[in-house]
Amino acid sequence: MSAQVKYLKNAWYVAALSTEVNETELFNRRILGLSVMIYRTEDGTPVALQDRCPHRFAPLSMGKRSGDTVSCPYHGLVFNENGQCTHNPHGQGHIPGGAVVRTFPLEERYGFIWIWMGDLPEDYSLFPDYSELDNGPDTAVGHTYMHMNVNYELIIDNVMDLSHIDHLHSEIITTRGKLSPIVPDIKETPITINARWEWAQQPAMMIFADFLPEPKEAADHYFDITWHPPANIQLSVGAEQNGNGSFENDVSQYDLHTVTPEDEFKSHYFFATRRNHHEEDADFNAMKIKAMHDAFENEDGPVVEAVQHEMETSDFFSLNPVLMTNDVSAVKVRRLLLKMIKEEHESTDAAE
Amino acid sequence: MSAQVKYLKNAWYVAALSTEVNETELFNRRILGLSVMIYRTEDGTPVALQDRCPHRFAPLSMGKRSGDTVSCPYHGLVFNENGQCTHNPHGQGHIPGGAVVRTFPLEERYGFIWIWMGDLPEDYSLFPDYSELDNGPDTAVGHTYMHMNVNYELIIDNVMDLSHIDHLHSEIITTRGKLSPIVPDIKETPITINARWEWAQQPAMMIFADFLPEPKEAADHYFDITWHPPANIQLSVGAEQNGNGSFENDVSQYDLHTVTPEDEFKSHYFFATRRNHHEEDADFNAMKIKAMHDAFENEDGPVVEAVQHEMETSDFFSLNPVLMTNDVSAVKVRRLLLKMIKEEHESTDAAE
Amino acid sequence: MSAQVKYLKNAWYVAALSTEVNETELFNRRILGLSVMIYRTEDGTPVALQDRCPHRFAPLSMGKRSGDTVSCPYHGLVFNENGQCTHNPHGQGHIPGGAVVRTFPLEERYGFIWIWMGDLPEDYSLFPDYSELDNGPDTAVGHTYMHMNVNYELIIDNVMDLSHIDHLHSEIITTRGKLSPIVPDIKETPITINARWEWAQQPAMMIFADFLPEPKEAADHYFDITWHPPANIQLSVGAEQNGNGSFENDVSQYDLHTVTPEDEFKSHYFFATRRNHHEEDADFNAMKIKAMHDAFENEDGPVVEAVQHEMETSDFFSLNPVLMTNDVSAVKVRRLLLKMIKEEHESTDAAE
Repeated sequence: MSAQVKYLKNAWYVAALSTEVNETELFNRRILGLSVMIYRTEDGTPVALQDRCPHRFAPLSMGKRSGDTVSCPYHGLVFNENGQCTHNPHGQGHIPGGAVVRTFPLEERYGFIWIWMGDLPEDYSLFPDYSELDNGPDTAVGHTYMHMNVNYELIIDNVMDLSHIDHLHSEIITTRGKLSPIVPDIKETPITINARWEWAQQPAMMIFADFLPEPKEAADHYFDITWHPPANIQLSVGAEQNGNGSFENDVSQYDLHTVTPEDEFKSHYFFATRRNHHEEDADFNAMKIKAMHDAFENEDGPVVEAVQHEMETSDFFSLNPVLMTNDVSAVKVRRLLLKMIKEEHESTDAAE
Repeated sequence: MSAQVKYLKNAWYVAALSTEVNETELFNRRILGLSVMIYRTEDGTPVALQDRCPHRFAPLSMGKRSGDTVSCPYHGLVFNENGQCTHNPHGQGHIPGGAVVRTFPLEERYGFIWIWMGDLPEDYSLFPDYSELDNGPDTAVGHTYMHMNVNYELIIDNVMDLSHIDHLHSEIITTRGKLSPIVPDIKETPITINARWEWAQQPAMMIFADFLPEPKEAADHYFDITWHPPANIQLSVGAEQNGNGSFENDVSQYDLHTVTPEDEFKSHYFFATRRNHHEEDADFNAMKIKAMHDAFENEDGPVVEAVQHEMETSDFFSLNPVLMTNDVSAVKVRRLLLKMIKEEHESTDAAE
Repeated sequence: MSAQVKYLKNAWYVAALSTEVNETELFNRRILGLSVMIYRTEDGTPVALQDRCPHRFAPLSMGKRSGDTVSCPYHGLVFNENGQCTHNPHGQGHIPGGAVVRTFPLEERYGFIWIWMGDLPEDYSLFPDYSELDNGPDTAVGHTYMHMNVNYELIIDNVMDLSHIDHLHSEIITTRGKLSPIVPDIKETPITINARWEWAQQPAMMIFADFLPEPKEAADHYFDITWHPPANIQLSVGAEQNGNGSFENDVSQYDLHTVTPEDEFKSHYFFATRRNHHEEDADFNAMKIKAMHDAFENEDGPVVEAVQHEMETSDFFSLNPVLMTNDVSAVKVRRLLLKMIKEEHESTDAAE
């Protein structure tokens, strides 16, 4: 395994919010260390090309669109959405064989544009199913994006170990100290890690209390999170009164946290949330996604960036962390991801 | 050839505009990775010393001038324009043998102060002749300076491949698509690369149209550029009507682009231009040099800096660029310069 | 000796001004490359812990105080002033054996909080005696702190070679050219280097003149400086009239310059001064310490930082400096410190 091994390549990463990319502009984002240009063709289909002209390496996203083609800002080579050069204004107009831009398969699902950065053909069977995000009115779902100066695995750690919420976050999602003592139930498959906590608290989490029959009384709660490679965590959280722990009539929300490495120490953090209550209130919906965005940016962000600064490396285990019960699921994810990356590289080496 | 080989050393580089250096101040510029102090002696002669006191390495340019000498800001050693220490205020005033500052030969020509950074004696026969810049009224010539965060060879590439102008620049110098299809005539000598394009367009380039007999009619045009080591490009551009391609009565300008490396990824870009028309208008002259400065800074600059950022190296060929007809002259320059640098180092090694 | 050898470890460094650390906040400073958290327990005793939780490496100084304990901002582990974990909110509350934070011995003396960063037990016999700073009214002593972007040895050099003051500083402490010609008397012990200059000047140094019997007349002066490891320089300076060089009735001040490396190229510069004249004037005292702070920051600072920038290394001798009589004491300090660091590492290696 070479020293450069860092990312699982043959996997779906989120490249952008669907709303970040439109039919008139050229969008740039650095993903797994590569500059990528994304735009929508005139029929709305998102396409991705490496954001580097093969001639003299100018970013194509600084160029001009014309229909579904893009011309390089520097010497005017024109490329279509398949990365093929369709026009060379120089000399006789001969198009050199090498005038091809790498393209990346995209798939738009659940309010995100996902990208396949691997060398193998894109594999839709590796797509996790988050269609729950699409089920319901637009006024009950929100999406947001944050940039963080940390290795992406620190963000996965943050979500996989929810015991931090009573310590780091404010009153609105406190479990009143109930969460930390619980060792979650862990369920594993060859490619997923699931953890679940259940507890009762009085009053309920403030984000749910007003939507329960008796806001000031005790309620049963759960967190249920599932990591799926490369960097997706589906998190469900809910509360219920008088349900005997069935959670059949819970007040809850279904979230997706997903992280895409920009490079070793920078990450694109995407988030979506759908709730099953008060679903028709657009103002409430806007307030809700803003509040969650602000919590990640203002509460998690500074501490996780300070951790990265103090670590000075992306190799967490090399620093001999003291691990505790609350680290179980996060550590299982780190080990499984490391194993997957190792296997991917071994099979690539074998194929060569 | 060692990994540090980067610059042709025994050659004349522009260190500063003549107007940047005066008789009262100490001017600092970093050139080929070395800090250089330049000032004019009382008779106006520019002199250059390494900008580092040999005692404790303070920049002499932070010190004080007295006549033609400079005293170090830190402990007051005084050096003259030959780099000799003329006064030591410490102890008995003995001047240590090592208290000598390296000097660099300078030569003031064509509105610039040129510097010789090499280990061999300065060689005036290596000076290109740009005396055309001096021939005519002051109101027909302009000089300017830009700092760019790129390897200097990317700026040479930019000028050697003029096919970018229809794609990158605005209306005032467009060739209306005529330039790109032309493969220039190339003329080579052992130390120069010349390229020439000729074409007709209607109307003429906007910078010339108003000075031609019939501004809206077709005109013959040419670009003629000659690279001379280490990093000089003389560019002539002109237009003519009814001359049958003789260009004997052209409306034209004679430009010099010259680049001096600050270090591997930073460059000092100098430019001069003299025109043969509307020569007595000082306001027009000021507008003209400002417009050209702004085009380099606002149009070429961002794209060339983005190219450098994307390349992440100064080794252009290592990235396997797709080369086309328009790259012929730029690539010839890169190869000839590389050969010259290699030969310089081999002869230096042999001499040791 | 390994390449990482840089600091004398078993020694007392100043970590902070006494006034920088209080009973309510958590103070952070980076010292010898390590993040350190300092706070006062409720009885006022300063304590220092490595500013990194052993669990997931969050800075403890971003956490919350409760009595004498600090809880980690991220997952709420609680540590006491001895670095022991006293509470784990997770799971059964078991405290892992590794949940210990490194502590550093502190000692508060002379208006500073000193820290012991070494691996050996703290050794109070290595403490220099600067109790003179404590002798007298509060209105005759001042302390200050400056951050500088230089290797700490450049600051030691600056103070050990006082010949710079006539060249770098302004009128108020000029020796009128008298200091530089003097080669100081040097006295050495196995762990200290002392240098002393004596001279007469007319009028006296401006900082003293108004406190002498005849401000405009000549006066005898002295500078007396003593370096003590790792980076302390005690400096006394005074003037006297009609004392025949006895300096028994001098007007003088007793200063301490002490530097603590943040890392190879950043330093914490601390300074204290006590004067023996005009001792009861609080406004004058405030003006005095501000004037000295400003001289270091605005006069020494820019030149010493420019020296560091030009050197591009912390290895002064590798640049073959031209050394002169005024460098004697500074060079002796550099050599003795280098010897001590070498010996410390050899004894550490032998012990392993």
